[in-house]
Amino acid sequence: MEQVLGYLAEHRQQRLSRLNELLRFESIANRKTPDGCRPCAEWLARTMTAMGLDAEVLDTDGQPCVLARSGQDPDRPTLLVYTHYDVQPPDPLGPWQSPPFEPTIRDGYLYARGASDDKGQLFTHLLAIEAYLQTLGHLPVNVKLLVEGEEEIGSPNIENFFRDHADRLQADALCISDVGFFAESVPSITTGLRGLCYFELTVSGPNRDVHSGLEGGLLANPVNGLATLIASLHDQTGRVTIPGFYDAVRPVSDELVAEWTALPFEADAHAAQLGVATLAGGETDLPPLVRNWARPTLDCNGIVGGYIEPGSKTIIPAEASAKISMRLVADQDPHAIAESFKAYVAEHTPAGLSSEVTVNALGRPVLLPDDTPPMQAARAAMADSFGRDPVMIRNGASIPITEVFQRVLGLDGVIMGITLPDDNLHSPNERVKLDQLWRGAEMAARFYANLAGGP
Amino acid sequence: MEQVLGYLAEHRQQRLSRLNELLRFESIANRKTPDGCRPCAEWLARTMTAMGLDAEVLDTDGQPCVLARSGQDPDRPTLLVYTHYDVQPPDPLGPWQSPPFEPTIRDGYLYARGASDDKGQLFTHLLAIEAYLQTLGHLPVNVKLLVEGEEEIGSPNIENFFRDHADRLQADALCISDVGFFAESVPSITTGLRGLCYFELTVSGPNRDVHSGLEGGLLANPVNGLATLIASLHDQTGRVTIPGFYDAVRPVSDELVAEWTALPFEADAHAAQLGVATLAGGETDLPPLVRNWARPTLDCNGIVGGYIEPGSKTIIPAEASAKISMRLVADQDPHAIAESFKAYVAEHTPAGLSSEVTVNALGRPVLLPDDTPPMQAARAAMADSFGRDPVMIRNGASIPITEVFQRVLGLDGVIMGITLPDDNLHSPNERVKLDQLWRGAEMAARFYANLAGGP
Repeated sequence: MEQVLGYLAEHRQQRLSRLNELLRFESIANRKTPDGCRPCAEWLARTMTAMGLDAEVLDTDGQPCVLARSGQDPDRPTLLVYTHYDVQPPDPLGPWQSPPFEPTIRDGYLYARGASDDKGQLFTHLLAIEAYLQTLGHLPVNVKLLVEGEEEIGSPNIENFFRDHADRLQADALCISDVGFFAESVPSITTGLRGLCYFELTVSGPNRDVHSGLEGGLLANPVNGLATLIASLHDQTGRVTIPGFYDAVRPVSDELVAEWTALPFEADAHAAQLGVATLAGGETDLPPLVRNWARPTLDCNGIVGGYIEPGSKTIIPAEASAKISMRLVADQDPHAIAESFKAYVAEHTPAGLSSEVTVNALGRPVLLPDDTPPMQAARAAMADSFGRDPVMIRNGASIPITEVFQRVLGLDGVIMGITLPDDNLHSPNERVKLDQLWRGAEMAARFYANLAGGP
Repeated sequence: MEQVLGYLAEHRQQRLSRLNELLRFESIANRKTPDGCRPCAEWLARTMTAMGLDAEVLDTDGQPCVLARSGQDPDRPTLLVYTHYDVQPPDPLGPWQSPPFEPTIRDGYLYARGASDDKGQLFTHLLAIEAYLQTLGHLPVNVKLLVEGEEEIGSPNIENFFRDHADRLQADALCISDVGFFAESVPSITTGLRGLCYFELTVSGPNRDVHSGLEGGLLANPVNGLATLIASLHDQTGRVTIPGFYDAVRPVSDELVAEWTALPFEADAHAAQLGVATLAGGETDLPPLVRNWARPTLDCNGIVGGYIEPGSKTIIPAEASAKISMRLVADQDPHAIAESFKAYVAEHTPAGLSSEVTVNALGRPVLLPDDTPPMQAARAAMADSFGRDPVMIRNGASIPITEVFQRVLGLDGVIMGITLPDDNLHSPNERVKLDQLWRGAEMAARFYANLAGGP
């Protein structure tokens, strides 16, 4: 292990250029650009092959996956590591201090779209694998690296991919590297993730934009109607009003609430950092971490309708639409929630307007047991690499694939990563702290060894 | 008069090319394009000068006005004719069957942005004036033509323009040519126009777009908050909830309601023509024409916030904004309504969010007496030109300048025009019926004569 850690320490700077190459790909799953997803996947397969892995690009009905492996020793356990190479769109571009696809180091951080979500985390595993291969010539476990290309759009093709390649994905343990620390210097392992329903809701009125004076008072207005529908989805206390929405929500014990409340979460500082007066989202009669980790939420991610250029245009628009997503918690069923939402919208669409709901993505929530052998191996690796025992937390975000791993491959994952809360995931100026990258690589190396009972 | 009408009949086709030149200018008041407002104004002044008028372009703090006159005989009454050369933006472009700034004739209609609102109406006066000058050598009245360049954005500079040029705008009668018929074959004179308040409302949350999973349940969402604000502006019956909003609204007599109800307005046909199931706008317990003519309304003209490209992005957006306009009726004061709206928004902005209201335009409502001498001259001219006595109607739209004429110049206008209800004002495929244009020119010629007591 010392040889491996030594190798890692010596090769940091020279490996950064490889990460920078990876970060330059504009691998946005729903855009087809010349330096987009497929070129990124092909670059990954080439790079991993050059490192000594067996790597290939595997097609799906959407963006391809990359699958690589090192070692096929039947006497060693096999670890499946999941990451993704696709990234969120960089919009809005204005606030970026350096171009989103031109990696730039400032003050110990590497800035780029995907730096922490999730190319940087993939990079920690590549560093650890290379260190083993260059020093010991093999890894203590057989490793399979699965790198997806559609995580940020809800992994629409991953379930079929799992079914098609179930044999090649067989493993004894699973590590999902797409999360992070609860706070800086608070290493964390994630046991809960929220599910996701993502909809587009379009409200239509007249068959064309019409004059708001000539028709005002006659025609129902699609923007006003959409606003009314959206507003009606929450009551005064921040609870979602869709019938049955909370029926399957698993209650949180008082003990767990106390544990979470003891974590270093400063609501006022969090609000100040984001520039708001108070944390007023969700069910405001509950503690913030309960709202974010153990309660479902409903948010509009975007809305558009009518005249949106500068100046005035006096119309009643023909239509307006909103992107509406919900974060679900165990044991809510996204399919049942989608049906309830559609029924609600149909029933509450104002007179004189019509509405249509399309489903962009559905993903189940996940709650993992925290005492399995892979979990113990991860805890020890994290403690040794970061100098503190990790805390067991949940995450308000969604990694839909976690639930698919459980259901299709029978694999419960260890979910851990090195992202810090102020890394601006999904936002302008996404970044990763370089020190987290280097320690993350050490953690990966130790985790492989712990899984095998030593290197 | 027969000579004049004869001239008009003989020169129709050859004059169309002049209207087409006018329609090709993309004279949108809030856009600066090479073929925009100022070039259009200069073209108008040149063209009118060539016709024999004294014409010039007069600057304002925004787009210029064109002022032209023919005749200064102190023994003749002076008529001031108001039209505007600016047009609504052509968006959305998709539905246009021919380009909005390339005039095209189909089935007896001339299609172009501004064909009816308001370049076509200006054209009827130019035809009439030219016919007099080419036949009798002079007009029966002194005519002043004022052609504005910012009507479609609320005439922000016209009041100062009136004050600066009050002496040059003195007149004995006023004709505002920016409206139309109640229905085809139902010639109409307009005695009431609604006022306008136009606002932009922006709701802000976090200082950047943030991850809707990591922050969902913590942060209040600006799109949801904006929707809640907008929804709260109406109650279940369609009444606006801003305190005091209806206090100054002049009631409508039962007699007037009966008169309006007798007009050929088919609610079902109107709904069907616009592709909606029912006319559900405004206070639905009142008859449609009462809602459109004598009651104020509130409509969102546009809304935008967050991610609006195809596909999914899971964010809580930093901000969202809406364009919100109100149509006012006598005797609502737009300044007082603006203050009430601002106070309402400030009071009802959801916790964790901030809001800002900016005022784009304010215009007072207008109600005119229907028995003045110019009104009698107009009624007779319209009856003779279209073969039916005109009906006295109101209009749900706004011509803010009407109120400014009253207040600053002491002129009550005759408001009449030749637009038909299906001319797609402010919409794609705006058009004017050619037969209305020709009869409109005859009406203008007769109106001038009637005002003078004969040609």
